[in-house]
Amino acid sequence: MNLLSEFDRQDLTKVGEELHSLAAELYPICRSITGEGFRQTLGLIKQRIPLQIFEVPTGTEVFDWTIPKEWNIRDAYIKDGSGRRVVDFQRSNLHVVNYSIPVRERMPLSELKQHLFTLPDRPDWIPYRTSYYKEAWGFCLAHNQMLALADGNYEVCIDSTLAAGNLTYAECFLSGRSADEVLISVHACHPSLANDNLSGVAVATSLAEYLAKRDLRYSYRFLFIPGTIGAITWLARNESKISRIHHGLVLTGIGDAGGFHYKKSRRGNAEIDQVVAHALRHQGEASEILEFSPYGYDERQYCSPGFNLPVGCLMRSVWGTFPEYHTSADNLDFIRPAKMAASLRVCATIIDVLEGNRRYKNLKPYCEPQLGKRDLYRSSGGEAISTEINARLWVLNLSDGEHTLLDIAERSGLQFSTICDAAEVLRQSGLLAEVAHDDLAASNAL
Amino acid sequence: MNLLSEFDRQDLTKVGEELHSLAAELYPICRSITGEGFRQTLGLIKQRIPLQIFEVPTGTEVFDWTIPKEWNIRDAYIKDGSGRRVVDFQRSNLHVVNYSIPVRERMPLSELKQHLFTLPDRPDWIPYRTSYYKEAWGFCLAHNQMLALADGNYEVCIDSTLAAGNLTYAECFLSGRSADEVLISVHACHPSLANDNLSGVAVATSLAEYLAKRDLRYSYRFLFIPGTIGAITWLARNESKISRIHHGLVLTGIGDAGGFHYKKSRRGNAEIDQVVAHALRHQGEASEILEFSPYGYDERQYCSPGFNLPVGCLMRSVWGTFPEYHTSADNLDFIRPAKMAASLRVCATIIDVLEGNRRYKNLKPYCEPQLGKRDLYRSSGGEAISTEINARLWVLNLSDGEHTLLDIAERSGLQFSTICDAAEVLRQSGLLAEVAHDDLAASNAL
Amino acid sequence: MNLLSEFDRQDLTKVGEELHSLAAELYPICRSITGEGFRQTLGLIKQRIPLQIFEVPTGTEVFDWTIPKEWNIRDAYIKDGSGRRVVDFQRSNLHVVNYSIPVRERMPLSELKQHLFTLPDRPDWIPYRTSYYKEAWGFCLAHNQMLALADGNYEVCIDSTLAAGNLTYAECFLSGRSADEVLISVHACHPSLANDNLSGVAVATSLAEYLAKRDLRYSYRFLFIPGTIGAITWLARNESKISRIHHGLVLTGIGDAGGFHYKKSRRGNAEIDQVVAHALRHQGEASEILEFSPYGYDERQYCSPGFNLPVGCLMRSVWGTFPEYHTSADNLDFIRPAKMAASLRVCATIIDVLEGNRRYKNLKPYCEPQLGKRDLYRSSGGEAISTEINARLWVLNLSDGEHTLLDIAERSGLQFSTICDAAEVLRQSGLLAEVAHDDLAASNAL
Repeated sequence: MNLLSEFDRQDLTKVGEELHSLAAELYPICRSITGEGFRQTLGLIKQRIPLQIFEVPTGTEVFDWTIPKEWNIRDAYIKDGSGRRVVDFQRSNLHVVNYSIPVRERMPLSELKQHLFTLPDRPDWIPYRTSYYKEAWGFCLAHNQMLALADGNYEVCIDSTLAAGNLTYAECFLSGRSADEVLISVHACHPSLANDNLSGVAVATSLAEYLAKRDLRYSYRFLFIPGTIGAITWLARNESKISRIHHGLVLTGIGDAGGFHYKKSRRGNAEIDQVVAHALRHQGEASEILEFSPYGYDERQYCSPGFNLPVGCLMRSVWGTFPEYHTSADNLDFIRPAKMAASLRVCATIIDVLEGNRRYKNLKPYCEPQLGKRDLYRSSGGEAISTEINARLWVLNLSDGEHTLLDIAERSGLQFSTICDAAEVLRQSGLLAEVAHDDLAASNAL
Repeated sequence: MNLLSEFDRQDLTKVGEELHSLAAELYPICRSITGEGFRQTLGLIKQRIPLQIFEVPTGTEVFDWTIPKEWNIRDAYIKDGSGRRVVDFQRSNLHVVNYSIPVRERMPLSELKQHLFTLPDRPDWIPYRTSYYKEAWGFCLAHNQMLALADGNYEVCIDSTLAAGNLTYAECFLSGRSADEVLISVHACHPSLANDNLSGVAVATSLAEYLAKRDLRYSYRFLFIPGTIGAITWLARNESKISRIHHGLVLTGIGDAGGFHYKKSRRGNAEIDQVVAHALRHQGEASEILEFSPYGYDERQYCSPGFNLPVGCLMRSVWGTFPEYHTSADNLDFIRPAKMAASLRVCATIIDVLEGNRRYKNLKPYCEPQLGKRDLYRSSGGEAISTEINARLWVLNLSDGEHTLLDIAERSGLQFSTICDAAEVLRQSGLLAEVAHDDLAASNAL
Repeated sequence: MNLLSEFDRQDLTKVGEELHSLAAELYPICRSITGEGFRQTLGLIKQRIPLQIFEVPTGTEVFDWTIPKEWNIRDAYIKDGSGRRVVDFQRSNLHVVNYSIPVRERMPLSELKQHLFTLPDRPDWIPYRTSYYKEAWGFCLAHNQMLALADGNYEVCIDSTLAAGNLTYAECFLSGRSADEVLISVHACHPSLANDNLSGVAVATSLAEYLAKRDLRYSYRFLFIPGTIGAITWLARNESKISRIHHGLVLTGIGDAGGFHYKKSRRGNAEIDQVVAHALRHQGEASEILEFSPYGYDERQYCSPGFNLPVGCLMRSVWGTFPEYHTSADNLDFIRPAKMAASLRVCATIIDVLEGNRRYKNLKPYCEPQLGKRDLYRSSGGEAISTEINARLWVLNLSDGEHTLLDIAERSGLQFSTICDAAEVLRQSGLLAEVAHDDLAASNAL
């Protein structure tokens, strides 16, 4: 049974609630690209799926980058003259510019303002800002909150540490029959932001849970990493494994109510690009395929010209195009259980196509084989044929060792699962044989 | 003179009537994939064109198939309690499921109904049904006819024979200057169905008559065969000739009032695909080009992956898309003399392009040759040029040994005949030389 | 500084007026494909840019053509019975069919009419007609002018000479760092026609003036030639130089108020085709890209199949599509100073792209290099990136030695200059190295 069928036997409402509840559990943690928040997050994921956790020391060189100091934070606030916390990290971890150096000072409002970030157009939302690679400090707050600050002196405290430590990331590796790998990469370095990080974390975790119980063709490697530096670190430490990656997906921002967007790999015509486009075409929601561009999530690293891996990025609303992006409004209300479940369902279809996509050779390629005598044709001559029979004709006609089942699905306009079922019936009838990867390579070499 | 010009010197109304009258002559015969009806049909065609008739014994293996027993029928009826023929083969040969085994029984209506086929949505039409490869019997009748049957016992008689014999088919071979062949294939195994079989038979017969009188570049092989098993039989018995087939067309369903449809060969970019698209673009009626699909007529066999021949299918209305398809309403009124004549006219254009399509080499390729001194240019400088001169410029510019005249016609948007005339004028002026097929192969091999 | 920036520092109104004034200075001269009018035209151009002038004797064979006799004219008229000049060459040089043989006769109106050309649909305009290669004489006049001619005898005089002499043309060669050449070709053989020849002459002359002051990557060869026979003559006499032509443009008809049209080279995908399309996409006026066709201006010769040079044709309104074409209405009012300036501006963009288009190799191709530490990234994490930074990411991602900067501009949708600036910044930071042409050839050969 394919994953989609297994998945569809669940109660989808319940699946959505479980996805949302994992996001909710992770939401309050103050994550960053290093530190205890990230470790705590991995700890909760590890309760669900097997995780191997890696620590990489500060100062390690990874390609053009260096692992930064580890950042941790306990508390932060701005107090007014009366000692009242007018900005309080305990109420939202977005209030502190992520990676702020420790500070404990008194200063007038005019000086403080140079360290304050707001969104004048969205005066009730707190922006999300970081300063990973430039030592600085700052607070983010609602614009209205800032306007309400009276002149006078303020006490500023950021009780953080920035010191030699480690960068942490985790892998969930699921071994399949082949050493060829599918990479699923999610960043988990954002603090209380729901769509832009936790939706991806929750869907990837759940997908790994489903896959862990199955007999798999490919091996699957799920990465839970800090954005940018995490992908760079993983690539730098795993150069020998990179050639095993046959397909890959960055999953993120897939919990909101928007339609699906898939950003193609740099190659633009990789199998994963074809697979995701097919899966999106045959689900119910609006979807759009975007050309590759070098700005975005960690596909930026996987698709850098030296690697040029077949890795695309599956999203709902695209980063930067919705107002809630990188603000406090990207909260647990912004992600919807039903949408997360539907995203997981699309991932199941993608996995089914990747797992089932093969090349076959028609063993009776001269004229059509007589399907009737094998009970694979219609009963009465003169009538129209069914979709099942049509799928069999397509598979027989295009199984010349060059077309994959997905090619056949695309050319016929039929669903991959219908084509896949037809191929299986024909294979069992002795009319098809799978073309091994090696045969293919050999015949291409001739 | 090209075939189209020859053809257009006829009275088109008369041409249409002759085509329709051949269809009318063949209409009453009860054809099947084997038997006397098929032989009788070939006999009438043979009065018009040279035909070689082949008989292949029952039991002969042809690829995955076996030649079935031969079927013949004299009479069939259902009589009611009063002895009245309520369903009578003598009134329409569609009343019997084609290939019905002999039966002579009495049975109550309830039992009889398991052998009756009707079209509830078209209650006055008789459906067409067959059971070639599963021994069975049945009657087809108008739904209203069935509703009028009273309860009671009925006498059922099918006076058929199903016994060792032969499958019959015919070839009309017209020898050209080259051994390279054009295949024209029509099925002739349907009983009283006018568009779906007799329109193709009539147009192909007439086309062969025209071609038989001409000096031909290609050799032409017209096949009059039973659908599916006939094409399979021909391919199985002629494997050595298959490499000679350079272009091919299945002709069928080209007598009704619908616009033209051309279903491309499996290759999708064969010369025949380009030729038919050009011919359809430059005639007056609506037309549509369809991608290849594995269900359809005998192109299914010619385009099976082992052969992958450049054979497309030219139709007017597409099988299964018009309600009359495979019913008694596909009768002599459904096919129109004027439409049959226009179909033959399109075939003439296709032949002209196939016969005339060549590659030339411009013998003065550096700058334009001076057409004026050869009287091939306009008389007064400063004015616009005519279509004839424009065609000459196109032929000179693109005759680099790679572009065919059809390529040039397509790229210039001009008609093939205009381009062909221009090439002939330039050749006669010593400005062009034909590129032999061998030269081309040699230069491609370098 | 690129040429466009230099150009935009001028007063565009003044630039337009200068262009128009050069056209106005050349307008009264009676040019033809040979003779003093052409020499006089070159003399005026030579006051602005360095010109080498070539004379090719009558009778010289150039490919399929022969240099014709030289034509000169002093006066021409038709006098009525009263001795009044009813048609007078001194009022418009279009009145004489260009290349008319000398004539001095008296004849009745009926006989004279066989030598008169008019435009009945545009009864007030004088047509432009030539008879270069057939010895003939004639007059062109307004249709209303002809209608006003009373019956009676007329005195006809064409005081021309047609005798052994020379064909004249000129080159302005600007030597660049490379021997690879850009060809700019304009015809200058039309008499008082403003858009169809003088607009191109003026823009090309001005472009050469700008380029003469610059350090150039390519060498530039501007040709001022008679149409057709001039291009053929140049090609015939310069076969050894032809392989140096890497890009080329025919400039003509670029002074009228219509939008831009670019007719692609015969190759259709040459770099010049891509460059001009990019330049037109990023300027403000309407523009259209036309497929190559063999009729037109001198690209006919450069794109003949034996040469197949990467030469396109940049115009505003296309020859033959506007009523003023080849009539006295193509006068100095028909060309607009502002439009000529805008045409020159598009040429400047084209030159900038040609000069700046290179391939680079990302020297840190594994993951993104850390732009932040080089001060090439945004200051605060979490915010959107600027177009400049986006351009840097595009250049880094696609600089794999295969994509040119123009490829990157096209794929990113950004302007070439933005991409070019990004590449320069990255090169200065040591992140990019130019791929030499030789490296490229070597890697392609592998």
